[in-house]
Amino acid sequence: MRFVDIIERKKKGFEHTKEEIQFIVDSLMNGTADDYQISAWLMAVYFKGMTLDETANLTRAIIDSGEVIDLSPLRDFCPHVADKHSTGGVGDKITLILIPLLASCGVPIAKLSGRGLGHTGGTIDKLESIPGFKTDLDIEELINKVKEVGLAIASQTARLTPADGRLYALRDVTATVDSVPLIASSVVSKKIASGADYVVLDVKYGSGAFLKTPQEAEELAQWMVNIADKLGKKFHAVITSMEQPLGRAIGNAIEVIESIEFLKGNMTSDIKQLTYEMAALTLITLEKAASTEEAYRLIDEVIANGKALEYFRKLVVSQNGNPQIVDNYRLFKQPKFAEQIICECDGYISNIDAYKTAYACKLLGAGREKKSDIIDYSAGIYLNKIYSEKVSKGDVIATLYSSDEAKLLTAKEFLKEAVSYTDTEPQCRNLIYKVI
Amino acid sequence: MRFVDIIERKKKGFEHTKEEIQFIVDSLMNGTADDYQISAWLMAVYFKGMTLDETANLTRAIIDSGEVIDLSPLRDFCPHVADKHSTGGVGDKITLILIPLLASCGVPIAKLSGRGLGHTGGTIDKLESIPGFKTDLDIEELINKVKEVGLAIASQTARLTPADGRLYALRDVTATVDSVPLIASSVVSKKIASGADYVVLDVKYGSGAFLKTPQEAEELAQWMVNIADKLGKKFHAVITSMEQPLGRAIGNAIEVIESIEFLKGNMTSDIKQLTYEMAALTLITLEKAASTEEAYRLIDEVIANGKALEYFRKLVVSQNGNPQIVDNYRLFKQPKFAEQIICECDGYISNIDAYKTAYACKLLGAGREKKSDIIDYSAGIYLNKIYSEKVSKGDVIATLYSSDEAKLLTAKEFLKEAVSYTDTEPQCRNLIYKVI
Repeated sequence: MRFVDIIERKKKGFEHTKEEIQFIVDSLMNGTADDYQISAWLMAVYFKGMTLDETANLTRAIIDSGEVIDLSPLRDFCPHVADKHSTGGVGDKITLILIPLLASCGVPIAKLSGRGLGHTGGTIDKLESIPGFKTDLDIEELINKVKEVGLAIASQTARLTPADGRLYALRDVTATVDSVPLIASSVVSKKIASGADYVVLDVKYGSGAFLKTPQEAEELAQWMVNIADKLGKKFHAVITSMEQPLGRAIGNAIEVIESIEFLKGNMTSDIKQLTYEMAALTLITLEKAASTEEAYRLIDEVIANGKALEYFRKLVVSQNGNPQIVDNYRLFKQPKFAEQIICECDGYISNIDAYKTAYACKLLGAGREKKSDIIDYSAGIYLNKIYSEKVSKGDVIATLYSSDEAKLLTAKEFLKEAVSYTDTEPQCRNLIYKVI
Repeated sequence: MRFVDIIERKKKGFEHTKEEIQFIVDSLMNGTADDYQISAWLMAVYFKGMTLDETANLTRAIIDSGEVIDLSPLRDFCPHVADKHSTGGVGDKITLILIPLLASCGVPIAKLSGRGLGHTGGTIDKLESIPGFKTDLDIEELINKVKEVGLAIASQTARLTPADGRLYALRDVTATVDSVPLIASSVVSKKIASGADYVVLDVKYGSGAFLKTPQEAEELAQWMVNIADKLGKKFHAVITSMEQPLGRAIGNAIEVIESIEFLKGNMTSDIKQLTYEMAALTLITLEKAASTEEAYRLIDEVIANGKALEYFRKLVVSQNGNPQIVDNYRLFKQPKFAEQIICECDGYISNIDAYKTAYACKLLGAGREKKSDIIDYSAGIYLNKIYSEKVSKGDVIATLYSSDEAKLLTAKEFLKEAVSYTDTEPQCRNLIYKVI
C-alpha cells in the first residue's frame, strides 16, 4: 500500500477499508507517511467525507494508537463508570457541578479534562484556580482516588490517543478542523480511551460555540452517538444553545464559586436545566433511577441534604486543594480591580452575545492564546443581569474583574457591545434543542 | 496573512487575489509555509478549482520565482522565437523533426526539453542516443548555438520556474497532479520562462496519454491558450489522439532514426499530418507563410531539397554529436537481441494500444521508473504493421530490440496483448481532433 494511493482513493470518493484506515494511522504514528501526505488526505476527507464504518474504524485505530485506561478496578462498587464531555462553551462549568452530583448519587467518575486554548479556561484551569488543587495525576492515582472518594479529575495525558494529537496538530494549521467525521472520531476516541462505559455529551451551537446552528450540532451529535454504538459504547448527546453564556459567571475562580453556589442550592435556571438533564440521563442509563421524575427527586435530595456539596469538598481534599474555599471565597486569588457596566435605559436584556463576552473575558486575562500564556485566575465577568431580565437606568448589568487595570478598561468596552436591550419582555428561549 | 487562512479561503471556494497567489508562491519558496500546508492547499485547489485570473497570476508568480531566458539577442535575425510542447505520448518524436524543419524555414528555436520519467524516454533521452550529443548546455551556450546554427535543444535547468519544481514534487506524492489549472500553470510557466514569443502545444488524449478523452484534452488546451493570452503570449494548441503510437518506432535511437528518415522524405502519414499542422501554425503565426497552402509548400520544399535534414545535421554537429549517424544508423548503439511478433491470422490491424506498447517498451529497457534508472538507447519497438494495414498469417507485425534477452521475451508477451485484428478494413481515424 502506498500512501499516495490512499489519498487518491479518498479524493475519488471511495470508502476506505478497515485495513486502509489502520494503514493511515500506522503511517502517521511510525512516520512512514509524511505530514504533507496526511494533510492532503485530511483535505480530501474534508471534501469527500467518511462513512460511519470508516469513521468508527478510524476512531478504533486512534484509540489503539495509545494507552486505554482500564477502569475495571472501579467496577467493584459500581458496574458502570460514567463520563461527560462538552464541545465547549462560554461559562460552561457543568463538569464542576455534575461530577460531584453524580458521585453523590453513587456513580463513580474518573474524568480527564483539558486546559482551555481559546477565550476562556478549560475545566482543568478552573479547578487549578482552587489553591493547591493538583490535576496532574497519573492513571493509577486517578483510579485510586476514585476508589477512595468516588470521583477524580485529571488533566489529559499524551499517552491516550496520541494519533489524535498528531492529527489535530496538522488539522489546526491546514484548515481541516471543521470536518464532522474527524471531529467526531477525535472526541469519541478520547472518551473511549478514558475508559468509561457511558458518556453524556453536551454539543453546543451558537455565537459562543464552534458550531453555529442546531442542525450542525445535531449532525455532529448523531455521528458521535453512532460511532460509539458501533464500538459497543452507550453515548447520549444533549444539543444545547450557546448564544448566551451559561449562568452568570465567566472566568476561572468565579465559575468555581458559581458551581459551589449551585451545589448549595443557589441555581440559575439555565445551569439547572442542563445539569438536571445530563444527570438524569446518566442516572437512568446506569439504573440509579427508573424515570426522569425519580432522577430529578434524587438530584433535588443530594442538593438539599448537602451530599453533592460534600462530594465537591471530597474532590478538593483528595486532590490537595484547600477545602475552606467552599465556605470562604476570599481564599481564591482576589482580583485587584473591578469595573461595572451600568444600564443607560429602562427595558429588558434581549441578548448577551456569548462570543463577545468570551472575547472580553480573554482580554481580562482569563484565557490563553497560546499554550504558554499564563491565566489570571481572578479575572472574569459576573453578569448581574442576564437574558430577559428587567433592567432600569442605573442598574449594574455586569461586573468585570482583573488584576490588570488597563485590560479591564479595554474589556469593558468589548463587553458593552455584547449586551442588547429591548422595550418588551423577551420570550423564553429553549436551552436544550434536542436529546439524542 | 496566515497560510492557514489562505487554505481556508480556497476550501470555501473563494477566488485568491493576486497578492494571495504571490504570498502562496513566496511562502513556498522562502519556506514560511510548511509542505503540509501547501499540500492541503493543493488538495483544496483540486476540489474547488481556480479561475483563469487566479491561474494566470499563479503562472506569473511561478515564472517570477526563477530565471527567465532572455532571447532578445536572437531577435536580430528573427523578430519572434518559437517553441513547441507536447503533453507526452508514445512514439512522439515530433520535436526531433519539427525543430530542424522550422529552423530550415527561418524560425530560430532555442528549446528546453525534459528527460522521460515513465514508459519511454523524453526528447533529451532520444537525442542522447546520438553518440557524443551534449544536451547539458547553459543558457548562454544555448543562445550562442541558436545564433550560430539557428537551433539548439538543451535539458531543462532548475534555475527556471523553481516554484513549479517544488509544487510538482508535492503534487506527485499527494495525489494532486490531475488538476487542470495546476497542470496548465506548470506547462505555461515553463514555456514562458524559456523565452519564446510563440508556442505550439500538442495536447494528447487516449490510452497512451495522461488525459483519456478529447474533452479533457480540449479543456486543458483551452486553459493553456487562455493563460498565455492573459500573460501577453500567443499559444496555439493541437489536440491529438494518442490511442496508437505515433509512427512506427518507439524507443530512443530507433525514434531518432525514424525522424531522420522523415526528414529524408520517408514519412508515415500520422507523423506527417501532425508535423505539417504544427509547422504550418508556427510559420503562419510568425509570418513566414501567408496561408496553410503556402506553409505546406514551404515544408515540402525544405524536405525535398534536403535543407531540413541539413539543419538536423547542424544541430548534431553543434551539440558535439556524431553527424555520420545521419547516413549510417549502425553508428547508434546496436541492440544485442531482437524478436518478432508474427501474425497468426489474415485480416487487418484494428488497434495497437499505445499504453500497452509503451509498457512493453519500458520492459525492454527504453524508459525509466526512477530518475536514477539507466536507459538502454538500443531498446525499442518497430511496428512493421500499423493501424488499418492488411496482414496475412506469417507476416511480421512488430520487431522488439533490447540488450537483455530475458527482458525481450517478457516484453514480447506484453506487446502481443497490445495488438488487435479484424476481418474488415478499419475506417480511417482522425489524428487531429481540434486546433485551438
